[in-house]
Amino acid sequence: MVIPSLIERKRDGSALAPGTWAAIVRAYDAGEIPDYQMSALLMAVVWRGLAPAELSELTSAMLASGDRLRFGDWNVPRVDKHSTGGVGDKTSLLLAPMLACCGAAVPMMSGRGLGHTGGTLDKLESIPGFSTRLALRDAIAQVKQIGCALFGQTPEIAPVDRRLYALRDVTGTVPSVPLIAASIMSKKLAEGLDALVLDVKVGAGAFTKRQVDARRLAQMMVGIGRRRNKRVVALITDMNQPLGYAIGNALEVMEVSQTLQNVGPMDLTRLSLELAARMIYLGKITKTQEEARELAQQKLLDGSGYKKLKEVIQSQGGNPQVLDKFELLPNATGAREVASPRAGFVTAIDAQVIGQASAIIGAGRDRKEDAVDPAVGVILEVKVGDKVDVGGILCRLYYTKEDRVEEAADMVEDAFRISTTEPEKRELILEVVS
Amino acid sequence: MVIPSLIERKRDGSALAPGTWAAIVRAYDAGEIPDYQMSALLMAVVWRGLAPAELSELTSAMLASGDRLRFGDWNVPRVDKHSTGGVGDKTSLLLAPMLACCGAAVPMMSGRGLGHTGGTLDKLESIPGFSTRLALRDAIAQVKQIGCALFGQTPEIAPVDRRLYALRDVTGTVPSVPLIAASIMSKKLAEGLDALVLDVKVGAGAFTKRQVDARRLAQMMVGIGRRRNKRVVALITDMNQPLGYAIGNALEVMEVSQTLQNVGPMDLTRLSLELAARMIYLGKITKTQEEARELAQQKLLDGSGYKKLKEVIQSQGGNPQVLDKFELLPNATGAREVASPRAGFVTAIDAQVIGQASAIIGAGRDRKEDAVDPAVGVILEVKVGDKVDVGGILCRLYYTKEDRVEEAADMVEDAFRISTTEPEKRELILEVVS
Repeated sequence: MVIPSLIERKRDGSALAPGTWAAIVRAYDAGEIPDYQMSALLMAVVWRGLAPAELSELTSAMLASGDRLRFGDWNVPRVDKHSTGGVGDKTSLLLAPMLACCGAAVPMMSGRGLGHTGGTLDKLESIPGFSTRLALRDAIAQVKQIGCALFGQTPEIAPVDRRLYALRDVTGTVPSVPLIAASIMSKKLAEGLDALVLDVKVGAGAFTKRQVDARRLAQMMVGIGRRRNKRVVALITDMNQPLGYAIGNALEVMEVSQTLQNVGPMDLTRLSLELAARMIYLGKITKTQEEARELAQQKLLDGSGYKKLKEVIQSQGGNPQVLDKFELLPNATGAREVASPRAGFVTAIDAQVIGQASAIIGAGRDRKEDAVDPAVGVILEVKVGDKVDVGGILCRLYYTKEDRVEEAADMVEDAFRISTTEPEKRELILEVVS
Repeated sequence: MVIPSLIERKRDGSALAPGTWAAIVRAYDAGEIPDYQMSALLMAVVWRGLAPAELSELTSAMLASGDRLRFGDWNVPRVDKHSTGGVGDKTSLLLAPMLACCGAAVPMMSGRGLGHTGGTLDKLESIPGFSTRLALRDAIAQVKQIGCALFGQTPEIAPVDRRLYALRDVTGTVPSVPLIAASIMSKKLAEGLDALVLDVKVGAGAFTKRQVDARRLAQMMVGIGRRRNKRVVALITDMNQPLGYAIGNALEVMEVSQTLQNVGPMDLTRLSLELAARMIYLGKITKTQEEARELAQQKLLDGSGYKKLKEVIQSQGGNPQVLDKFELLPNATGAREVASPRAGFVTAIDAQVIGQASAIIGAGRDRKEDAVDPAVGVILEVKVGDKVDVGGILCRLYYTKEDRVEEAADMVEDAFRISTTEPEKRELILEVVS
């Protein structure tokens, strides 16, 4: 394998021949391709893209570079959901227990927040004692026992993907739709799933700002799944405002608790139910999508999802009482109201700015190595379409350190657009790609 | 300086801010930028190009990374010529002595052949004893004493350019017009020149196959020179057939000798005189271009260029008698005629194929580290426009080892296009960019 000539082929816009990406991944894993050739190749991919067959082969090769969750002949349908990252998106914490109650198994391997987006692991770790570091065999055992586990990517999973991501992170080669699709799918396929529902966020708070890009990403991921005979569907959903009211780790756990008791925000409830229904139907728990919707609704209304989440917390070392007694969760020491400078309708809430403002008071991180403050964040008081008076509260910042609160408050205030005309209602679920 | 964000800017098509390229080159030189970031940045440059200000800054920074030839207050005009690489192009060996006879100084720092193109250093080293490894101070001393020196790039010259080129060579980032322009100009500007004439080859045997690309390269190099107040002009010249009849190192030295005695090939003589005239005029040796042409012609006719080349050979350790007695040069041990399969006019001679065929019998090299066989090569018997009979000799291969001669002969035969209709006359000098 002559690497420079492969780089040249990709640079000149050609697809690499069958077997080439598999060989590249193996050679890189074996230390036979230096990073300086790999980064040039990755930049050529950012430029030229990948053909479907290349994409599928790259994904399979990254998956094959490591281990996967093996459930043997255990025949409970395994399903998962993956979101491309948003602000206030805590659906994973709702879906894993709800699906477990429906007779599916959810081996949910999640990530951490970076930049303005939150991460499931950070949210869970705001629960005192909760451990997201499960060995693969322990995660498998818990899934078999209680139906789900929420844990971090272990070193055995797609190690080449992890090395490539670290290289991409420092070489300007992250924002490539096929590379993102391959990275996501190599990890999700390692979960040993039967079905996968993807939530591709689009809008100001998402990685993909335009629906056309979100659709491309969705199509690529669905295509990778299809080539491996997995049932995969993608919802393209709106991230032009945060999902729900709470942004910040412990604050989001509280909102999850409320939602599982059916007193949560309408948008969060609605998206969770739709994602759950898609997972149920794809997992062949029900015969029709309609039955799936009913089943999901039922598990929310009868409180079984709520009970299951307590079981998960218990099983992973946390105190399940946090879901009832929020004082057991880390709590902020101060609150700062942000008031509206004028009267009118809220027409937009820039989710990226809200995410960034939460991050600077400690709820998020700029670099992987940074710690987060589990207690802090933002609670919206209004959402798009709501009416607000002059001086009416737009949101509250919850903080533990005062030093950057005013800066965050200024940012948050600018994130709200207030207009005299009522905005048109936006769809939450924009498109289904299957 | 945050390298990933600079890579991202270039990747997204923006020019880097003033001072950035200078800082990048300094940091890379200091080992502060790893190769994997540099190669990704280079691929982004292949993709997005460089704005004129970026190009000029990169060139200056590469130049500044090393030493240059310093002539102090010595006021003899210093001129040079650089060719982008062709097949049978031995004009450098003619021009350095001719210009020295005209009262100019020519500190000619040259390169080696690679792939199908020949290199001045390889040609000179076919002369027994000739040393192209001059220390900078010795090169300067020789230029001051006899008017010219022909030598290889020393380690002090543009070291960052050398490191970058080595990286580009293995990362598919060589064919970028601005990177090529910057690399050439950083070395040429290190010669301490007043004026530079560029010979940008275009056609089958050249790096730039299309005239539009050759023009872009020419304009970029002329632009870099102008921003540094150097007099630079570029000729775009035809490389759709080899220049002259001889291809191969010692064979080309023989043709140089003949040409300096005014019995050389017409195309080689014509191009050399035109390049010489441009150099003379740009070096302000004469007031007009017409006078410059006359002066060049005169130095060819009166044999002073021929005598000067002997002086150069003597000064650099070679035996000047090789120019009279070709048996003192390395000579091939076998010759293989290639005959025309049909009668007609020669309409094209693919210079790249001729160059490749010469290389496989030993006249060229695939990799920098390979040695060349000075004795071997190809002598054309016909040129484009000539008439040939069935079985008439198209060319002869001169070899020392038989193993790949038949393969080379087949290639060479295919390089000739023979047609029943006489081809239109092609211009040798296609365009002047100044």
